[in-house]
Amino acid sequence: MSIVAVGSVAFDTIASPSGKVEDVLGGAATYFALAASYFTPVRVVAVVGEDFTAEHENVLKKRGVDTRGIEHSKGKTFRWGGQYHDNLNEAKTDFTELNVFEQFQPRIPAEYQDSKFLFLANIHPELQAAVRRSMTGVHLTGGDTMNYWINGTRKELIETLKLVDVLLINDTEAKALGGDSNLPRAALKVLALGPKALVIKHGEYGATIFFREGAFGVGRHPFRAPALPIEEVKDPTGAGDSFAGGFMGYIASQGEVNREVLKRALFYGGVMGSFAVERFGTERLQSLTREEIDARFQIFRELTHLE
Amino acid sequence: MSIVAVGSVAFDTIASPSGKVEDVLGGAATYFALAASYFTPVRVVAVVGEDFTAEHENVLKKRGVDTRGIEHSKGKTFRWGGQYHDNLNEAKTDFTELNVFEQFQPRIPAEYQDSKFLFLANIHPELQAAVRRSMTGVHLTGGDTMNYWINGTRKELIETLKLVDVLLINDTEAKALGGDSNLPRAALKVLALGPKALVIKHGEYGATIFFREGAFGVGRHPFRAPALPIEEVKDPTGAGDSFAGGFMGYIASQGEVNREVLKRALFYGGVMGSFAVERFGTERLQSLTREEIDARFQIFRELTHLE
Repeated sequence: MSIVAVGSVAFDTIASPSGKVEDVLGGAATYFALAASYFTPVRVVAVVGEDFTAEHENVLKKRGVDTRGIEHSKGKTFRWGGQYHDNLNEAKTDFTELNVFEQFQPRIPAEYQDSKFLFLANIHPELQAAVRRSMTGVHLTGGDTMNYWINGTRKELIETLKLVDVLLINDTEAKALGGDSNLPRAALKVLALGPKALVIKHGEYGATIFFREGAFGVGRHPFRAPALPIEEVKDPTGAGDSFAGGFMGYIASQGEVNREVLKRALFYGGVMGSFAVERFGTERLQSLTREEIDARFQIFRELTHLE
Repeated sequence: MSIVAVGSVAFDTIASPSGKVEDVLGGAATYFALAASYFTPVRVVAVVGEDFTAEHENVLKKRGVDTRGIEHSKGKTFRWGGQYHDNLNEAKTDFTELNVFEQFQPRIPAEYQDSKFLFLANIHPELQAAVRRSMTGVHLTGGDTMNYWINGTRKELIETLKLVDVLLINDTEAKALGGDSNLPRAALKVLALGPKALVIKHGEYGATIFFREGAFGVGRHPFRAPALPIEEVKDPTGAGDSFAGGFMGYIASQGEVNREVLKRALFYGGVMGSFAVERFGTERLQSLTREEIDARFQIFRELTHLE
């Protein structure tokens, strides 16, 4: 079943110990869409400027992504520049030029209204809420956010969280949102704000999913998927969005949503994140095969599997 | 089969957000011995001062630990004081009084010579090497170290690593010892120094074991065991030593050492570490049952187990 993804399309300038690229196609919606496209049909809602060419759009179209929801505005596309040093978990931002993204008012095309799955990438929580409310047939909504909104627009974010079924954030964000330095306690506090499940991404250590009592199954036992230790991380940009794409894409492909599906989805999230970081930008996500993805899924599975 | 543990016995003064304790029994050898005692007979080699009473020794004896290798010296026992704040992964040391530990010259009692397993806790690498050489019948040696020795006595440590079969250290130590900020690359470089396997402890994220090509089995695929997300961490002191105790104790209890045994041992390491942090000092490790341990092993297993 198809999934609608709402978020940023950007041009990124990235430097890491492995090299440097300029103005490569990026943005949360792009990484998410490419990663999810290996599992299920994806429809994107985003805004781009006049510098976004047919060639750029073809990166998405080649993966079968529906781009009718990409609005072409006067001006330049969102640009971000950043560097990674030895600690690849932390980006040092060189510049952020919001450009056309500053006035982004997501509009869901009528043709997208039959989608049952929705992913709200990291944008202003009020826009996330408006999108969710405008799509009446959605069965499951995934969402992302960041410290900027957690600290700056907490009230609006808390309203939005009532509309999100599965929230995907990292350790720092979970602790800030839950207001607790202990991760499982913070998770409980975030779940009390609305989401039925909370995925906390641990970077190279994998991810944990916490459930509200009884949501998608029995009890509230968390589940953890490891990440593959990778010998060469070229560019961590988009790893979290690729994780979300693998996670949500797999769920949408299954139709029924239960704990076993969510557990497998957590592994597929880790798999797509691990591919994303192997090359700069979205390069690796453009040319995968489902066989490669399932082979890595098996490796991830064996990584923690006892006889 | 029995295991000999060589390391510190100490009195710790610890403050954390959950409270404060003074002069409680601690030290690497103590945590290790208590944790390992649930799996296999343990024999300790350490040094204590006149303030170490029969009551203290009984904590070990009650768990069946052989204390004939504990040397009683004139003076005071090793003392350490530290604090944990919100980030429970990092201790701020208030004081370190080496006392009798400063002149520690480990002597292996003749009665210990038939042990086939040895654990060298975090002491000067030259002492570790001397102990290993003095025990001629040992089949498997586990070892620990820390940044103090990695940076200060690198040459001696590298000689010692040739005598250690399984090294257990944390992420920071592995990166420093391997001289690489990428964890799996650092692991390969550490394995090139001698150990057949390297266990890297990730704190609340679990642990990964890396194998030298062909060691204990086929290939060099790493294996990862998760850690349980714990809602109340009272005192992280000794978590790493308790991990080592569970890991080495389980191995010694199995006799044959192969990859499947090492994988299970990695889970048991995480289990014992998770118990240790639930109470101050060694309190929780003094009163466990094997049933409680195996029940938590099952929880850890299910935490990452796909149908």
